[in-house]
Amino acid sequence: MTYDAVHAAAEKIGVTKHIVGMLYWDMNTIMPRGSADVRAEQLALLQVSAHEAITSPRLAERIAAAEADESLTPWQRANLRELAHQRLHSVAVPATLLEAMTRQSSKTQMLWRDARPADDYASLLPAFRETLRLVQEVAEAKASALGCSPYDALVDRHDPGSNEAEIRRIFGDLAGFHRQLVDEVIDAQAAARPPVPPTGTVDRSAQRAAFEEVMRALGFNFEQGRLDESLHPFCGGAPGDVRITTRYSDTDFVGALQAVIHETGHALYEQGLPVEWRNQPVGGARGMTLHESQSLLMEMQLSHSREFVTWLAPTLRRAFGTSGDSWSADNLYAWCNRVERGLIRVEADEVTYPAHVLMRFDLERALISGDLDPAELPGAWRELSLKYVGVAADTDRDGCMQDIHWFDGEFGYFPSYTLGAITAAQLFAAARRQLPGMMRFVGEGNFASLVAWVRDNIHAKASSLGQDELMRQATGRSLAVDDFEKHLRARYLGDAG
Amino acid sequence: MTYDAVHAAAEKIGVTKHIVGMLYWDMNTIMPRGSADVRAEQLALLQVSAHEAITSPRLAERIAAAEADESLTPWQRANLRELAHQRLHSVAVPATLLEAMTRQSSKTQMLWRDARPADDYASLLPAFRETLRLVQEVAEAKASALGCSPYDALVDRHDPGSNEAEIRRIFGDLAGFHRQLVDEVIDAQAAARPPVPPTGTVDRSAQRAAFEEVMRALGFNFEQGRLDESLHPFCGGAPGDVRITTRYSDTDFVGALQAVIHETGHALYEQGLPVEWRNQPVGGARGMTLHESQSLLMEMQLSHSREFVTWLAPTLRRAFGTSGDSWSADNLYAWCNRVERGLIRVEADEVTYPAHVLMRFDLERALISGDLDPAELPGAWRELSLKYVGVAADTDRDGCMQDIHWFDGEFGYFPSYTLGAITAAQLFAAARRQLPGMMRFVGEGNFASLVAWVRDNIHAKASSLGQDELMRQATGRSLAVDDFEKHLRARYLGDAG
Repeated sequence: MTYDAVHAAAEKIGVTKHIVGMLYWDMNTIMPRGSADVRAEQLALLQVSAHEAITSPRLAERIAAAEADESLTPWQRANLRELAHQRLHSVAVPATLLEAMTRQSSKTQMLWRDARPADDYASLLPAFRETLRLVQEVAEAKASALGCSPYDALVDRHDPGSNEAEIRRIFGDLAGFHRQLVDEVIDAQAAARPPVPPTGTVDRSAQRAAFEEVMRALGFNFEQGRLDESLHPFCGGAPGDVRITTRYSDTDFVGALQAVIHETGHALYEQGLPVEWRNQPVGGARGMTLHESQSLLMEMQLSHSREFVTWLAPTLRRAFGTSGDSWSADNLYAWCNRVERGLIRVEADEVTYPAHVLMRFDLERALISGDLDPAELPGAWRELSLKYVGVAADTDRDGCMQDIHWFDGEFGYFPSYTLGAITAAQLFAAARRQLPGMMRFVGEGNFASLVAWVRDNIHAKASSLGQDELMRQATGRSLAVDDFEKHLRARYLGDAG
Repeated sequence: MTYDAVHAAAEKIGVTKHIVGMLYWDMNTIMPRGSADVRAEQLALLQVSAHEAITSPRLAERIAAAEADESLTPWQRANLRELAHQRLHSVAVPATLLEAMTRQSSKTQMLWRDARPADDYASLLPAFRETLRLVQEVAEAKASALGCSPYDALVDRHDPGSNEAEIRRIFGDLAGFHRQLVDEVIDAQAAARPPVPPTGTVDRSAQRAAFEEVMRALGFNFEQGRLDESLHPFCGGAPGDVRITTRYSDTDFVGALQAVIHETGHALYEQGLPVEWRNQPVGGARGMTLHESQSLLMEMQLSHSREFVTWLAPTLRRAFGTSGDSWSADNLYAWCNRVERGLIRVEADEVTYPAHVLMRFDLERALISGDLDPAELPGAWRELSLKYVGVAADTDRDGCMQDIHWFDGEFGYFPSYTLGAITAAQLFAAARRQLPGMMRFVGEGNFASLVAWVRDNIHAKASSLGQDELMRQATGRSLAVDDFEKHLRARYLGDAG
């Protein structure tokens, strides 16, 4: 009875958050420009309502009473644990601080939209300093509540159970081979014949039809999902109504398709979560690292593989009505996997991407601890960009202002991109071991066994287990960089995989 | 202070209803088919939340306390009145009855979807009987609370302040001339050369561009609104984000455009409501009759006029790339205004339409009072259809099952269609009197003075006044059929307008 009352309260909070998801999707795809204020009111109402519900003292009492019930199933118990954990994050931050943070983050983001194209970090600095101050305040409040360091508290929000020490262990192992590997790959590619961009004229409806065909092949359920357009591709909506977006291009069809496959990976996770726990904390995705692992598993591990491209090349030639050498499987494979040192994280390839994350991990910890003053960020950025990436921008536009993160108040988020890549490699390697014929099926455009494997091992388990336990059950060990390194060496240096 | 507390509570209810509006729009345009259950959960959560808020005893106390405050502005006072009135409707119906009604109405609608194409009224009868029983129960509960008859209580929900006696007065005057007028018009048209359907091939994007051009000319604000597609055209969304839909056709372009103009009339009302009262009861539209008057003013009074068609014909020829006699202003005008006795209300022209409403008004009162048993509806329908419309269907599909209303639990709604047409005629006549050059401007595609007139006289006043007071201030008198009769005689019989 007490458990049921908690369940009912959590259900309302869950459905409220899913409504927020629908309104965000609408806002970022089709909402008229002039309706932003109206939408902000709607979102604020729902977010305050969810916040009030989760922070109510009555709920805390009920969770405590329910936890004493010895007849609970493991999933019910996990559900209480997850709800209590979400509650800790919410209760830790006083309403006034939350409101100040939300307002300041919107303000700084708005300034960033103008400051970045103008390459004018100075105009952004005062607002960013205030955002950082509030983030520090939030982090300290949560650190007290959670019994951890401020930076750990920020990481924990995106990746429950993860922390700085764990990330340093993984990133330390990564840094041990990464720089040298990048050099080797770039040298190897310089010695080979460079691929050419696939060319042609492909109208939007043909692109869309082809993208939907690939999504369908990957198992995306269009009965409970959609593909639309937006400025930046994303996966949104709500479980049971999962909506991904892409941006069509008049030239870079392969890039648009890769974005679709990436978002399809996110979508498959959402569509694979257990329906009976849909609106409950335990029924949600396990965290940002695992979410990113699902998108990167589909995009990098699967769709950039030789076998996938062997299937994809004729599929695209037929769907797009294109032909010629640039659409051969060999050229497409080399084109997808070309490696280059670049300034911009979101344009980086799989090999150089971790360098962008390693530098941001160093910088954001220094910003949060106060060791790095925001005024010093541009210089520190250039220094670490040279150290990790090997190049540095002349401008702040392509330097410390390139990402919206930090200016939107998000810290502790960047590591999950590379942790996700490492996780994807370990999961994919385990799937290949456990499904012997898998890559042959991939070459035939049959991804069912792989999708079933991630569904059973990751999606269906939702948040019933911690991230580490999920990985140990699925792959036999905790997260480590070995499979990621092996994958990169096999794909880019031809080492035995 | 007390008023402010009421205002804040009403604001939350208003925003919640607008979120419901957004989710309904999405559901009826682009939502994936398989997401219906998820959406139903979301809508139920919001509707229950709004219902709980408006029925809270604390709110009643606060409204009473605020009403005693003598420093209130007239709009504040009207706002309390409207909120208290909405509250009466909500409080009157016990939660269990509301839930039973909602469930039964969904069930009967679902059955109707299959029963209508199968022409199988018998399969629908048990569920419809139960729906009617619950509607009667709701009507009686509201009648006690509002101090009126059950049928009046149903009317009042759609059209606050209206009632059966008032509708009988108007419809009695209408019936006094209507049947004979239809005969005269049909005879007159039979003697004239019949118009031909405008033909050609117009692709969807050209239709859309032309429709948007007409919407813009009428003053639709695309910065806070959109045009999309749906099975049945409607105006939805929320104030500040008004979304209308149409259905494109490969043949009936003019019909699709008329639907767009009709929904644009609804949309202009929503877009013209006072922004500062956007989420408050007093800031909403005055009722369904006035809402329908705004759509019919734009569609029937304006866009079917000789002057409008004179502007429209070359506009469409250019936008559609069509030519020939069928696209001449003379043919288009005759085509738009052709009159024919038909079985189906939603396909009826302006002249015969009221007959469909008059018969439904008789029938639904008899159903609610219990004088007509649902088993007798098919026969009674045929009888009244012959009496009022002059034709009767052989089937129930095109007879008593043609409309979703009644089966969805909506009674007291049909009269507003014809009351809206009569209101539109009276408003349009007043605008012409007060704006001497108006029709000349219309012929030039300039609708600004007319739109400003309805905005000032109707839209901007929202629910600050009752419907009768609004009409008296705008037109100098209470609602009467005279202008409607004059309009029909002028347009269809060439009598001096």
